[in-house]
This record gives sequence, C-alpha cells and structure tokens, in this order.
Amino acid sequence: MAKVFLPKGTRDLMPGTMNRRLMVIRTVREIFSRYGFEPLETPAFERIETLTGKYGDDGEKLMFRILKRGEGGTKGQVDLALRYDLTVPLARVMAMNPGIPLPFKRSQIQPVWRADRPQKGRYREFYQCDVDTIGTESPIADAECIAVVHDSLTALGLTDFTIRVNHRQLLGALALAIGAENQETSMLQALDKLDKVGRSGVEKELIERGFSSQQASSLWDYLDGAPIPGAAEAEAHLRAILGLALDLGVDPDRVKLDRTLARGLDYYTGPVFEAVLNGDYSGSIAGGGRYDGLISMFSGKDDVPAVGVSLGIERIFMLMEEMGLMPAASTSTQVWATVFSEDTRTATLEAASLLRQAGVRVQVSTRVGKLGRQLKDADNRGVPYALVCGPDEAAAGTVVLKNLTTGEQISGPPEQVVREFQG
Amino acid sequence: MAKVFLPKGTRDLMPGTMNRRLMVIRTVREIFSRYGFEPLETPAFERIETLTGKYGDDGEKLMFRILKRGEGGTKGQVDLALRYDLTVPLARVMAMNPGIPLPFKRSQIQPVWRADRPQKGRYREFYQCDVDTIGTESPIADAECIAVVHDSLTALGLTDFTIRVNHRQLLGALALAIGAENQETSMLQALDKLDKVGRSGVEKELIERGFSSQQASSLWDYLDGAPIPGAAEAEAHLRAILGLALDLGVDPDRVKLDRTLARGLDYYTGPVFEAVLNGDYSGSIAGGGRYDGLISMFSGKDDVPAVGVSLGIERIFMLMEEMGLMPAASTSTQVWATVFSEDTRTATLEAASLLRQAGVRVQVSTRVGKLGRQLKDADNRGVPYALVCGPDEAAAGTVVLKNLTTGEQISGPPEQVVREFQG
Repeated sequence: MAKVFLPKGTRDLMPGTMNRRLMVIRTVREIFSRYGFEPLETPAFERIETLTGKYGDDGEKLMFRILKRGEGGTKGQVDLALRYDLTVPLARVMAMNPGIPLPFKRSQIQPVWRADRPQKGRYREFYQCDVDTIGTESPIADAECIAVVHDSLTALGLTDFTIRVNHRQLLGALALAIGAENQETSMLQALDKLDKVGRSGVEKELIERGFSSQQASSLWDYLDGAPIPGAAEAEAHLRAILGLALDLGVDPDRVKLDRTLARGLDYYTGPVFEAVLNGDYSGSIAGGGRYDGLISMFSGKDDVPAVGVSLGIERIFMLMEEMGLMPAASTSTQVWATVFSEDTRTATLEAASLLRQAGVRVQVSTRVGKLGRQLKDADNRGVPYALVCGPDEAAAGTVVLKNLTTGEQISGPPEQVVREFQG
Repeated sequence: MAKVFLPKGTRDLMPGTMNRRLMVIRTVREIFSRYGFEPLETPAFERIETLTGKYGDDGEKLMFRILKRGEGGTKGQVDLALRYDLTVPLARVMAMNPGIPLPFKRSQIQPVWRADRPQKGRYREFYQCDVDTIGTESPIADAECIAVVHDSLTALGLTDFTIRVNHRQLLGALALAIGAENQETSMLQALDKLDKVGRSGVEKELIERGFSSQQASSLWDYLDGAPIPGAAEAEAHLRAILGLALDLGVDPDRVKLDRTLARGLDYYTGPVFEAVLNGDYSGSIAGGGRYDGLISMFSGKDDVPAVGVSLGIERIFMLMEEMGLMPAASTSTQVWATVFSEDTRTATLEAASLLRQAGVRVQVSTRVGKLGRQLKDADNRGVPYALVCGPDEAAAGTVVLKNLTTGEQISGPPEQVVREFQG
C-alpha cells in the first residue's frame, strides 16, 4: 500500500503539544476578554476578489487558491483562496456589518495559510492571534493594546520582556529633519533591520538606498535623543498612551519609548508597539499599532480609526517549550484506572466514574489482569496516579489510589479516596 | 467601491455566537479529557492522493481542491484538498505514527469543508467533534463512547435524550433470517430512513429495492422482538457494553437497545450508537460505532480495531439556542467602566485594573463625559454592571459599581468594591 505523507510545510499537533497549546490559548483568551475583546471567527477561505491586491506581489504568490467546484473546476477557474491573515477578513466583517456598535473590540485566534518555503519552526499553516479595536481614536484603545500584551506575557510566565513603543509621525518628523521626506518608507525599511544588522548594517543599507552619510549620521543623533523638530505632538501622544498604560497596571519597567522602532509594514499611521524578550532572544513576540486607513478598504468610507496588536503565538509556543514554561506532562490524564480482573471491573469503573464526577481525568485500562503491565502503561504515558481495585479491595468495597512517582497511596471507600485526592 | 461578500455557504461567527460556542466546546473538551480522550489537530488540507477515493463519487464532487502554487498553478494542477472529515486524517496520523502507544484515544474538534448546496443551518464550513479509541477491542472503549455522549449532553443541559444502540452483526443475522444475505446494505439503507418515512415508507422502499412483501413483514416481526437466529453473540456483546456503560455512570433511562438502528454508513462492523433528543426533534445529535476496517486504509496492516462517536456539534449549538440553553447575553463583558472626565480617568482605569486582576471582565468606555450615553452604551451591549467614578468619588478615593438591571449599587474604595462584587 502506498505510503502517506503530510502536505509540505504542515504538521499534526499531537495530544502532548495540543494540551499545551490549548492551555496557552485559554490563558490569552481570558486576558483578552477581561479587556472587552470578544472572540470572532471568519471562514477559512474568502472570495478571491476579497484577497486579491491586498498583500502585494509576494503575498499573492503565497496564497492557496481554491478551484471552483463543478464545471468551472475542470477549467482551472479559481473563486476562493485560503485566509492569508486576520486583518483583511476583519475589514470585510466591518464593511458587511455597518450597524455594529463602535468601538468594536474583537479577538481572533485562527490559523492562516501561506505557501512560504518551509523552514525550522515555520509552517504553511500557522495560528495568528490578534486583538483590534475599531472605531475609536481614544488613546485608551492604544494603551489597552500595550496592557493586553503585558498581561498576556505575564500570565504565561514570559515575564522578562520589554514593550517598545514609537510613533509613525515621530518617524515622519525624523525623515523630514534629515531631509528625507520623500524617502520615509525607504528609511523605515532600512531602520527596521537595526536589531538584525546593527547600526553599521543600517548605515550601509541607507547609503545603498541613496541616503548621504551626512543624513545617516544625523539620523543617529536624533535616534540618540536630539530633539526632533515637529515631533512634539507625536511625543506628547505617546507619553499620554504610556501614562494610561501605567494606569491600567502595566509595569513601568516593562515598557519604553524607542525612537528606533520602525515596524516594517507601511499601513501604520500612529503609535506602533513591539514586544521582545530580554536577553538572547531575537525577534519580536508581539507587535502592532494604529492603522487608521486599512479598515475602510471595502467600505469605501473615510478612514476608520483602528488599533490592534498581534501576539506571535507560534513563536510564544516555541519559546515557552524551550524555556521550560510548559507543563512537562505529555498527557492531561491524571489517573490510570487498572482492571485487575473481569470480576473487579465494575468496582473499578464505578470508582473511575466518581473521580470523573469530581473533575478528575481518568483513563481506564483496556488490558485486564497483569497489573505490572498496566502500571507500566500508565508510567510510559506519564500518567501520575493509578487506581487499583483487586479482589480484597472489591470485597471490602475499597480502592487504592497510588502516586506512581512517590509510591504513596490513599486507600478506602471510593468516595473517601476521591475526597482525599481532591483535598 | 465594490461591495464585498462572504463565500457562498459560509458565515462569520460574531462575538455573541462565538462566546456561546466556546462555552460548549470547553464543556465537551473537559468531558472528553475526563475519559482520557486527548486533543489532536491536523492541517486544514491534505494531499489530494490522501483524500481521493475515500468518500465515494458524491464526496469527491464536494471536495474543495487547492491549486498547486508556482508554475503548476497556472496549469490548473491540484495537489491539495481541504479536509472533508476527521476520520481520514486520523487514519493518516495512525499510519504515519506506527509507534504510538495503543489504545490511542483522541478527540478532534475542527472545521471540515464540503461544497454542499447551502440550506438553512447547513454550511460549507462546519465543525466536527469526534472522539475515537484506536487499537483495542475492549468493550470498555465502546461503553465509553456511550458514556462520553451521555455526560456531554447532560453537562450541556440537553438532558432529555435517548442513546439508541444496535449491532451490525445483529443486522447481518437479521438479513440472513429474512433471506436477504446478499442485500444487507440495501436493507440497511432502507431501514436507515425509518425515523423519516415510517414503517410504510420503509416497506415501500424495500419493495422497490426488490424485497418481497413476505420479507418485509418478516423484517417487522424480528424488529418487534422475535428471536433472530444467529444473533445471540451480537446481543450478548451489546448487553455487556450496556452493562459497562451503566458501571460508568450512564443513566439506564437514557440508553436503549434498538434493533431498528441502522446508521447509514457502510464501514461500521460492530456496535453502532445514535443519540436523539426525545420529543419533536428529528435527526440525531450524536452517532458512531465500531469500524474495525477503516483505520488501516493507509497502513496496509490487518484491520485495526477502532470505535468512535461524533457529537453533532453544529446541531447541538443550534438546538441549544432554540431551547434557550445558551446564555442570553451577547457579550461576556461584566462591567462597563465609565469615564466621567479626563480628571477622573486614572481613578477609573486603576479600578478597572483591580477588577481585572480579580478575574472580572471590564470594558473601559472610550467616550468621556455624558454619563447617560455611556450607561446607554453598556445597556445596548447587554453589559450588566457599570463602574462610575465622578469627581466626588475620585476625591474620596472611592468608586461606585452599579447593577444596570436592578439599580442596586456598591460603593467604597476600589479594593472593597471588588471584594463585595466577588463575594
């Protein structure tokens, strides 16, 4: 029979991994909802017209296109494509629901698909995890993006992070100040690589992009703190947002203004944020900003104010595994219920049922007899406790619950064992 | 600007709906894990070879095919298709992971895609929700399918249900007994419509399918309880499974042997189950059975014993809405934090932060001033409480938490208000 394979660049999320991912997702969902961000899901695919022209030529190439069903299909006609991000679908939702009360605060945690060249830790199907506030210019919405990232990372135990904050208008003023007002995007693209290539690398790229060495050196002066003409308003705006973030409980040591933060994407129009882990971890684990022009792409209305942030959830899963922040157990099962013999099986199942009613996770062995093998099964799977009910226990109406690591055990009538286990 | 649309047969799951769906999914996940079923996720698409030939001609037509990227794409070549169910991906996972400890018990809650003609309550993207135990013939695994359905429906408040249980070998003996051993599948297909068309309808169909009226009337005798020659083993097997299900805590009034239960699919090889709501609700809300031949489709090994059940989760969402079992609130936000003025904003944000730290879900108003409008915002969205901090409260270091339904309020220092609200 033919061997089977996964599609290139994809993976199965096996139970050990899934238990940990669900734990992380549950945690961030809870934080999101504490700030009033409520969950949205959109279909896996969109009409091809909805996605075309939104992601540039490169994005277009990476999109998974779906063949029209029926007759069209045989002609190779395409009418759908898989979701490439969560922002275009959000813009579509806003255009299709003009009466929705504003501000609309939504969270969305769903996979997206990109036919990128697969590489270590990068897949063609991966989850994105976004929160956005649509329809308000209030700086509270910007501050909440910072607070949500702060609270999420803290709740996940990734406590040693810095949230860098900057403002696109400040960068605009900066471009003007070095005489590069028509090359702002080019300047941002060079600056965006600072973390990777350092100052000399950025300087080299600026020269290649046609900036003078005079302009480059003037750039560092401003980035090092020289007052930027025309940046006062943006700076005041940022200070107001930071003040609100602290009011919301953000630790002042975890957030800092950083004039060098560029954020590559060109749709940001105001404050931008990025969270990085301190120490030897390169790359960001969250990023976002204000993007007042994007949401109106379908509605044809004037700009709709919008601000949001995306947790790099796949990166966070990976880092948490590496840093030992995930539970070691590959199973969420707590008790392995052994079956000594057909005669004691009912007693075992009844005890398992009582444990389950108390919320305990119990797997019943499908082997009967040979207790040693059953205990080994439990151990192999990393299940921490075993329930045993032999003929003596069954006759006495008792069970034994054994800690497989320490060897300690509780015994007695099932109700009592459940109580003691819970207590 | 061009109007945008959703792809045909799809929908957005807006926050009110999503909150309720997540609640249901959380509940069934918890029940699943109490029985040792652990979560698995597979990619949205599979290689086209993996899916081809698995769903019959009709299924093949409904599959969403994905165009090969790059050059192949322009020629209309297809290399992937969207997941059509969760069983073929499970068989692939088993074939690709031959060393996985058995029995492998997995739950999987993910969307599948079928280009069916859209109709009320039927979509081209919908969630399936399966649990399966692979690699054991133990009747405990069959009984657990019944118990998991029983506990899930009970936990969701859908308490008035019946789980019907039958055995394919009993139906085989029945076909033999009426002299239709070569028309067993045909007999099952006719019988499968009993709930919809009644006895006369089934009889009519049997005649059309070439059965004699003698065979049909003999069929009803057996279905009404006449002993079926050669069915003793299957009946003993079913009784054993039912006994185990009761040991696992299943209410004996919620489960019954039913010789008429056919289950349309032809891959079942042993016990079959189906849950229906009692009363005027047609159609099943869960179904499954033992299918010992299917899992080996890729591995080429001998039959791999397997038994599973699928909760009709989309149907369950719909019925729970109709029956008023879903929370009425369209929001999960508990407190609307009003902002009286810029001067009191910090006090409001700090109180909101304290509430959040205590696990309360708080949305801060992005309006400032005009308290009446802010309270109306809260009310419009169905948020039950409002936090108010005017100049007097700010000066006194207190806040007011008002129940918007009853008008009752708690006031005092924020810490005290949080405690009283929680208590």
